Amino acid sequence: MKKMQEMILAEGKVLPGGILKVGSFLNQKIDTAFLAEMAEEIARLYGGCGVNKILTVESSGIAIAAAVGIVMKVPVVFAKKHRSSNVDGETYGADVHSFTHGTDYRMVVSRDYIGPEDRVLLVDDFLANGQALNGLIKIVEQAGAELVGCAIAIEKCFQGGGDALREKGIRVESLGMIESMTDDSITFRV
Amino acid sequence: MKKMQEMILAEGKVLPGGILKVGSFLNQKIDTAFLAEMAEEIARLYGGCGVNKILTVESSGIAIAAAVGIVMKVPVVFAKKHRSSNVDGETYGADVHSFTHGTDYRMVVSRDYIGPEDRVLLVDDFLANGQALNGLIKIVEQAGAELVGCAIAIEKCFQGGGDALREKGIRVESLGMIESMTDDSITFRV
Repeated sequence: MKKMQEMILAEGKVLPGGILKVGSFLNQKIDTAFLAEMAEEIARLYGGCGVNKILTVESSGIAIAAAVGIVMKVPVVFAKKHRSSNVDGETYGADVHSFTHGTDYRMVVSRDYIGPEDRVLLVDDFLANGQALNGLIKIVEQAGAELVGCAIAIEKCFQGGGDALREKGIRVESLGMIESMTDDSITFRV
Repeated sequence: MKKMQEMILAEGKVLPGGILKVGSFLNQKIDTAFLAEMAEEIARLYGGCGVNKILTVESSGIAIAAAVGIVMKVPVVFAKKHRSSNVDGETYGADVHSFTHGTDYRMVVSRDYIGPEDRVLLVDDFLANGQALNGLIKIVEQAGAELVGCAIAIEKCFQGGGDALREKGIRVESLGMIESMTDDSITFRV
């Protein structure tokens, strides 16, 4: 998506440690006109695939997931992050390590909100190592639902999470794909 | 909003401790068709008020704030919740006590994302004691921005937060207003 590349180049800031800061349009502050454009593009990419549920994880994935859900006219479910890994019988869950924050958490979804009848599209703002997506995929598997694919705003290809999923045969569509990044340059995969 | 009353009656569950569970359509699982209707109604209520920014707090307020932002064509900013109350020079912040979770947190917003030029609409999914809204109002004040009003999906009137704000002259619009609630009945304020 050409506009995503333009937005990243215009607004993104590269911070030490391979962090791309896009808080001015994608998270913390959300450019809602662009959010609507992203949602339309994701709905176009996954149109005709029979998606009947969108799954994301709190909190920065919620805005884009909700926008996609409105366009695709399907419900959105978001996993909650818990600090403990307590397991109860009422939830699906997966333990996730966040490299960004250096923390572990458990993502959980009520069993009421996803099930074998669901064809699920995973939506998130960022894809780096793929830890969050892998957690969501475990939840889809536990629910006996079908994974249609993943839709991501920005993929940091150099961290390998997206390609590892593609190698497993999972469809991953990222609106902006960053092949490499230095303090003063960003190279996109096209 | 009549539809909100219908949704609460059809889908809501009253739990011990005055908790209303609406996870099946408002948070955790989001009915996106209804989300779009809520956004249209809030945009109608605050149309012509010169709102140029929407402010909410992670994470369950993000979906409705994003939907309103798309309809009103204004950016959405969400405050992040931090566990510590460390203050740095780059953020506005307010310490908040959550009665729901029995915890304290600090909500913070980067100074880059809100300022004196902003006319701010606060959007959230729930209004009970008003702790979260009061925190957001402090941030609006710190930024030197103007508070236009508040738009809430569900207000639990019996917890008093909304009326306390109205007594201060702040406009508060809630799509569903619960006057009282028992294990087997819900009474709306109309």
